[in-house]
Amino acid sequence: MAKALVLEEKNRLALREIALPDTLGPDDVRIEIDTVGVCGSDVHYYTHGKIGPFVVKEPMVLGHEAAGTVSAIGENVTNLAVGDRVCMEPGIPDMRSKAAKLGVYNVDPSVRFWATPPVHGCLTPSVIHPAAFTYKLPDHVSFAEGAMVEPFAIGMQAASRAGITPGDVALVTGAGPIGIMVALAALAGGCAKVFISDLVDEKLGVAAQYDNIEPINITRDDPAKVLRDATGGWGADVVFECAGAAKSVQTALESAAPAGCIVWVGMPVDPVPFDLVLAQSKELRMETVFRYANMYDRAIALIGAGKVNLQPLISETFAFEDSIAAFDRAVEARPSDVKIQIKLKEG
Amino acid sequence: MAKALVLEEKNRLALREIALPDTLGPDDVRIEIDTVGVCGSDVHYYTHGKIGPFVVKEPMVLGHEAAGTVSAIGENVTNLAVGDRVCMEPGIPDMRSKAAKLGVYNVDPSVRFWATPPVHGCLTPSVIHPAAFTYKLPDHVSFAEGAMVEPFAIGMQAASRAGITPGDVALVTGAGPIGIMVALAALAGGCAKVFISDLVDEKLGVAAQYDNIEPINITRDDPAKVLRDATGGWGADVVFECAGAAKSVQTALESAAPAGCIVWVGMPVDPVPFDLVLAQSKELRMETVFRYANMYDRAIALIGAGKVNLQPLISETFAFEDSIAAFDRAVEARPSDVKIQIKLKEG
Amino acid sequence: MAKALVLEEKNRLALREIALPDTLGPDDVRIEIDTVGVCGSDVHYYTHGKIGPFVVKEPMVLGHEAAGTVSAIGENVTNLAVGDRVCMEPGIPDMRSKAAKLGVYNVDPSVRFWATPPVHGCLTPSVIHPAAFTYKLPDHVSFAEGAMVEPFAIGMQAASRAGITPGDVALVTGAGPIGIMVALAALAGGCAKVFISDLVDEKLGVAAQYDNIEPINITRDDPAKVLRDATGGWGADVVFECAGAAKSVQTALESAAPAGCIVWVGMPVDPVPFDLVLAQSKELRMETVFRYANMYDRAIALIGAGKVNLQPLISETFAFEDSIAAFDRAVEARPSDVKIQIKLKEG
Amino acid sequence: MAKALVLEEKNRLALREIALPDTLGPDDVRIEIDTVGVCGSDVHYYTHGKIGPFVVKEPMVLGHEAAGTVSAIGENVTNLAVGDRVCMEPGIPDMRSKAAKLGVYNVDPSVRFWATPPVHGCLTPSVIHPAAFTYKLPDHVSFAEGAMVEPFAIGMQAASRAGITPGDVALVTGAGPIGIMVALAALAGGCAKVFISDLVDEKLGVAAQYDNIEPINITRDDPAKVLRDATGGWGADVVFECAGAAKSVQTALESAAPAGCIVWVGMPVDPVPFDLVLAQSKELRMETVFRYANMYDRAIALIGAGKVNLQPLISETFAFEDSIAAFDRAVEARPSDVKIQIKLKEG
Repeated sequence: MAKALVLEEKNRLALREIALPDTLGPDDVRIEIDTVGVCGSDVHYYTHGKIGPFVVKEPMVLGHEAAGTVSAIGENVTNLAVGDRVCMEPGIPDMRSKAAKLGVYNVDPSVRFWATPPVHGCLTPSVIHPAAFTYKLPDHVSFAEGAMVEPFAIGMQAASRAGITPGDVALVTGAGPIGIMVALAALAGGCAKVFISDLVDEKLGVAAQYDNIEPINITRDDPAKVLRDATGGWGADVVFECAGAAKSVQTALESAAPAGCIVWVGMPVDPVPFDLVLAQSKELRMETVFRYANMYDRAIALIGAGKVNLQPLISETFAFEDSIAAFDRAVEARPSDVKIQIKLKEG
Repeated sequence: MAKALVLEEKNRLALREIALPDTLGPDDVRIEIDTVGVCGSDVHYYTHGKIGPFVVKEPMVLGHEAAGTVSAIGENVTNLAVGDRVCMEPGIPDMRSKAAKLGVYNVDPSVRFWATPPVHGCLTPSVIHPAAFTYKLPDHVSFAEGAMVEPFAIGMQAASRAGITPGDVALVTGAGPIGIMVALAALAGGCAKVFISDLVDEKLGVAAQYDNIEPINITRDDPAKVLRDATGGWGADVVFECAGAAKSVQTALESAAPAGCIVWVGMPVDPVPFDLVLAQSKELRMETVFRYANMYDRAIALIGAGKVNLQPLISETFAFEDSIAAFDRAVEARPSDVKIQIKLKEG
Repeated sequence: MAKALVLEEKNRLALREIALPDTLGPDDVRIEIDTVGVCGSDVHYYTHGKIGPFVVKEPMVLGHEAAGTVSAIGENVTNLAVGDRVCMEPGIPDMRSKAAKLGVYNVDPSVRFWATPPVHGCLTPSVIHPAAFTYKLPDHVSFAEGAMVEPFAIGMQAASRAGITPGDVALVTGAGPIGIMVALAALAGGCAKVFISDLVDEKLGVAAQYDNIEPINITRDDPAKVLRDATGGWGADVVFECAGAAKSVQTALESAAPAGCIVWVGMPVDPVPFDLVLAQSKELRMETVFRYANMYDRAIALIGAGKVNLQPLISETFAFEDSIAAFDRAVEARPSDVKIQIKLKEG
Repeated sequence: MAKALVLEEKNRLALREIALPDTLGPDDVRIEIDTVGVCGSDVHYYTHGKIGPFVVKEPMVLGHEAAGTVSAIGENVTNLAVGDRVCMEPGIPDMRSKAAKLGVYNVDPSVRFWATPPVHGCLTPSVIHPAAFTYKLPDHVSFAEGAMVEPFAIGMQAASRAGITPGDVALVTGAGPIGIMVALAALAGGCAKVFISDLVDEKLGVAAQYDNIEPINITRDDPAKVLRDATGGWGADVVFECAGAAKSVQTALESAAPAGCIVWVGMPVDPVPFDLVLAQSKELRMETVFRYANMYDRAIALIGAGKVNLQPLISETFAFEDSIAAFDRAVEARPSDVKIQIKLKEG
């Protein structure tokens, strides 16, 4: 039995004891959790009790963005040692699957992912995890930053799949947490400049505090026009659609340059009207993103090198005891909120 | 003045004299046209007077799928000689444009394309064309086959952009002329097997005469299921959507394997409802096709090697004098018709 | 204890009883071996007792090109059933390694590979193997062909890494068994035509029995010139160097087209003089090949579809009892020999 | 007749009047030159009279790294206006060539390149150049920086061809001017960290003034070991070989990670001993670089955004009248010299 933040059912959280798996396998490590970020998906399970086909039928521990310290290692583990400060990839694929053999373990249908029913998450003081999906943090990277690696890895996946050529000009549609992560990954990943569009000035303000991220408020300006003006009429080499709205889907198609690329990151709830002919007339390449694979070490390298600074995106930190308050704050987020974190360890 | 098949206006064709450009520039060749294929776009201008933003406002010569013999060369021309049997790429880009410098001259907005208003086509005994876009035919490739290179080049562009890995299993949705061209290019380009879906058995029958093209009649079978069954549950490595219908767009998304690719070839008249989340859940890559670039020599190489046989797709050949009858046959096509051609030279 | 073909030490083979691992793990299958091909590496261990850093210090069972029938499955196995006819990938990587997670499990340094010291091979009536690296054969593909999948997979790896664009013209230098496998994979993988060079006419004759494989005897013709002549002066889009000789390395560099690709398949015993400036002047891309990853299902798909016919490459088949004779024949191979096989099952 | 820095023959420079082409074609612009950088190739023609097959047989104007101001435009020119501050791509390809159509105009064998015999360079107050290869500078980018775009474009080409995945760790061998350009392009293009090796501490010191460039003095440390230590034993994701020496070629092969990439930038005078088997054992991809194509606008975008700062690399600037002194300084360069420039305009 361990204390954990448990989603009992839709709209009802409890910080209570619960039975959790506790066997350290030969390829596993045990991690004492220090910090866990609150993700939009955690909040959505809280407020809706489900995401698409994933329905919370039994009490489930929330949380999947975590960093902590290794406290025990299985007998086969060689890449980690007790005392290592680490962060963890929350999805565990079947490495014998065809997808895993191909290097795209993220699309293995049998992935078990923290805080996705029926799999428990990590908002609890100690977890068991495969060493192969546990990554060491550099000494100067904080646990708070370590817990940001998970959402940043989505940005990294988007930037990687874009196939950025150095000096590309990009547009990100949507300045929510994921849009900002994508913008930072795109800049660190080779873009000269990233424009970001939204209709909320506070969100744009958070993004615009970074060099070479240029805000576009869509209530005042047309992103497609801004991009043409900035590129001698050519358009965005890469568009990252992160808003998931029908309007921004169209904006993405209009803003992309001939032979450009759109990465579809945002997830519209329903099918959207899609102008395929517009995409064809510019012979666009379009990529999609599903979580991430092989991105954690790259994300940590960029953060460790100081090329990406996620610290300004941590809006507020709550103690473990105040986890429910943390979630309620995330539900009623301020416009400038990017990330709410929960710190399990003191000090 | 030269004799030509002129679209006077919507629904009115005339075989008559018309003034056409006749100056041989230093980088040009003159070609005596032997054979011209009738394309769906030619027919569409005939029956509708326009395609999207391109409207026939002045009489325009039709035809853009052509082969013939070089009869004169400009002073700078070194790659061709009088007497060479050739076929021609119908679009002439501005090679100083950014798109052309990037190697994607097909998406240069200033391309001038045969039989696209206001540019005249090639259904006339002699044309002037840049040598750089005129390609020599091997001796054993007929003019009729040479005139098929243009539509086949679209299939080649689709197959090239798919990035086929040898041994891929593909699905083509839509067994019209383009669907068949794409299927043949995909097979020649490395696929082990190509499934092709349609609701007309005659069309499927034309496709299925080729080895390793497997027909699926969608009134009887679900392509997504057929592909899963054929691939141990994995799905199609590549889907080429060539039908341009909302239903086949959904079929494409459902049939693609995890980490697979969809090439959007068909052009839906209106925006289609599009399930982005389904694409994302498999992290699909999606490519689009706009005509072709750098495909003619490759297409000719495959035809010349006998790896692609387009002869069975030539449904009927009309004499130049019977050009209007040829178009009327193309308008009222039989289900098994793939390509109607017009032969300008006798013998 | 099981009967096996054992390399006791350099130059000494014995067909005798030996203790072999015999525990069926939960993710394993047991396979009754039907046919095993003799590979150049098997022969090299026989005649030299080592390959590079791999030295035969203890008696070792030879053989790694095998096909057979599943006779038992572990409790977790779902993709195979008793009675399935299969072939096996001989290298077993650690799927928790960084290389494996990236999809390049072939370059995982901890791979255990059949008949590579100190790992036993499969020239024995029954083996245990992970189900994830065991592949089902179509009904109409023989065990003899199934045992050819391993060497053909090397050709597939080379063709895949070449990134063939449909209609490419290729040169293969060296018409030994691997050169021919590469040529067949390149043709099936999208090349219009493959030239193959060697100095032995008998070897070229074996290759030239296939359509679109054109032999070049380097004692009479210069491959670079032949390729230029065949491509209007451009050169080979892809060169597969499979001879591993200093001279053929230079031929590869000379024969490649501007912006072309060379795949280095042949393994020169010592460092070779290399004209980097020549490669740079054409801005070549160069790929290398180490065994294969994710190629078995693709290879089987092409063989099953009839796009690749390996049957003519099986030069002679010996019974298990005559295994030593089979090896001696492989040592003193006839010029036209491609593959010697050993059939363990009767009938 | 115009004043120019003329290489009369090996070892003899003159600043004198010379007849130069002066006809403004319809697609050309005239540029008043402000600043010209001295390149190693200029110096090599001065001291050796030739580079490989290119021999100075007639007096030739030197210089190809230039920035200036547009003073006249041809009748077809629309992308530039009189008064625009610009830099120029020194190679003019035949855009009708096969290479140009493919987007790799840099490998068109018929390229005419400034200061490559028999083509004159730009060390003269005014030049004529095709508008398509003339690029506008942002207002805040100086002419001195504009004249650095040419050498930086080589770095950009190397970084682009590497196909950097965001967060890669790179090694650059050789801290000369090109090595530093490559390191800066690799960092701006997505690398987390770039190690650079040389045996001269002063050169390493110039490179190490930039964040995330880590120097390795090869007289004290082994780059392969440093890279392994920095990457948990994995090695460099990308190695850029920029020294052109046999020893650094071997270092590159040893330092690259499994499935990594080596970009061969340095040009060894003679063929080097090359360990292909080492490259194969890690299944490396290897790219080569020949000048650049489609890199100027990307280079300018990164410089304009402040992501790349080339200012510290300008070691000293000479007046046009002192051009010969500038070349003599370049011949007897100080260890910390990166770029010597000549300023033709006053003020």
